[in-house]
Amino acid sequence: MATLRISSRNYSSWSMRGWLLCRMSGLPFETEVVSPEDPDSRAELLLQSSSIRIPTLRHAGAELWDTLAIAEYLNELVPEAGMMPEERLARARCRAISGEMHAGFAALRSTLPMNLRAVVPNFTLWSGARADIARILQIWTDCLERWGGPWLLGERRSVADAMYAPVVTRFRSYDVALAGHCEDYARSILAWPDVAEWIEAAKREPEPPIAELDLEAEF
Amino acid sequence: MATLRISSRNYSSWSMRGWLLCRMSGLPFETEVVSPEDPDSRAELLLQSSSIRIPTLRHAGAELWDTLAIAEYLNELVPEAGMMPEERLARARCRAISGEMHAGFAALRSTLPMNLRAVVPNFTLWSGARADIARILQIWTDCLERWGGPWLLGERRSVADAMYAPVVTRFRSYDVALAGHCEDYARSILAWPDVAEWIEAAKREPEPPIAELDLEAEF
Repeated sequence: MATLRISSRNYSSWSMRGWLLCRMSGLPFETEVVSPEDPDSRAELLLQSSSIRIPTLRHAGAELWDTLAIAEYLNELVPEAGMMPEERLARARCRAISGEMHAGFAALRSTLPMNLRAVVPNFTLWSGARADIARILQIWTDCLERWGGPWLLGERRSVADAMYAPVVTRFRSYDVALAGHCEDYARSILAWPDVAEWIEAAKREPEPPIAELDLEAEF
Repeated sequence: MATLRISSRNYSSWSMRGWLLCRMSGLPFETEVVSPEDPDSRAELLLQSSSIRIPTLRHAGAELWDTLAIAEYLNELVPEAGMMPEERLARARCRAISGEMHAGFAALRSTLPMNLRAVVPNFTLWSGARADIARILQIWTDCLERWGGPWLLGERRSVADAMYAPVVTRFRSYDVALAGHCEDYARSILAWPDVAEWIEAAKREPEPPIAELDLEAEF
C-alpha cells in the first residue's frame, strides 16, 4: 500500500496537490497526516525549511518528497490513468505550466496563503500578487482557448489541474474576481469531487497548536 | 532545429542547467542568448518575475519554459540518451532531488548567486545558507553512497547532475569546503566537458549593461 505523508489539509497547498495527484492515479494509498510539531511540517508551514519535503509518497521502496516527482512517478506507474496528456504538445504545455507553478509565484504564495476555511471579502492585493494573478489568468486563458476546456489541457484532467487547484481555492478565499473561461474553469475545479472532499476534510481539521504559525508566510 | 533561449552564461544557473540538459540529450540545438534588456531576462536576473521563464526550449512546435519540463520532454524525445536512470528507485530519487533543487534552497540562491567569474575566499555564510548547504551535502552523500558514484545516480550522468552542477560552481566561487565523496563529486562535475565548455564561455561573456543588476538577488 502506498502512503502519502501530508501536513495540514487546510493550510498546505502542496499537500493538497500531492493528494489530488494520488487520487488521479487511481493507486490505492493511505494518507498520513504528520503532527504540526513535526520538523518537516513546521518547516513547510513556517517557511523555515531549506527545501520543502511535504508531501512525500512512499511506494514499493521508493520515496518521493517532491510534488512534481510524485506526478511523474505516478504517471509512469499508472500510464492508463492519463495524468499527462497523450498528445505531445499538450503534454509539453502541461509540464511547462506545472513547472512554472512549482518554482514560481512567490508573491501569490506569501500574500494569499492557502486557508480553505477563510473567506476575506474585498481583500487588498498588492502589486506583486497582482502580477502573479495576471500571469496565472494568462496561462489558464491560453490553455482553455487552445485546448477547449473544461480542463487546462482539454477534456481530461491532467497533472496541471492538480497543480492549479489550490490557486482556485485561494482566488475564492481572497475574493479575486474571475470572468469568462477562467470563471468556468474555477467552477470545474470546485466541482471536481476529490477537491470537494479535500475541502470538506480541511474544514473539519483541528486548528494546529502552533502559537507562532505565521499565516502570512504559508506556501 | 531546436532552440534554447538563455539569459546570461555567467549569472544564470537555470540557463546553465537547461543547456547541460540539452547537451545530455544529444539533440542538435542552437543557443539563443537574449539581451539583458529583454523583459524575461531582466525578470529572471533581478528576481522581478512572477515566475521564471528562462531557459526556454523550442522544438517542433513545443515550447518549454521550465527546466524540469525541458528535462522530461528531452527524456521522452531521446530515451536512448538515458537522462533518467533506468532503474525505478534510482529514477524516483533522481526526480525527488531534482524537484527539491527546482523549488527549494532559496537562501543558497539569494546569498550565493551564481557568478562563474568570481572567486571569494573566506566568504561568510549566514545560517540560512548553511542549512541549505548541509541539506545538499546530505543529498549528495546519500546518493553517492547508495549508488556508488561517480555521478549522483551511479555510473551514468542523469538529470540530477545537471540540476546540481551550478551548486558545485557556487561552492567553488564562495570557498565552501568539501570533503570525501562530495569533493570527488564536485571534481567530476567540473571535469564534465560540457560544464568546462560552459564556464569558459561564461568567462568570455561581456558584462551586462544593467546598472541596477543586483547580484545579491540572482537566482
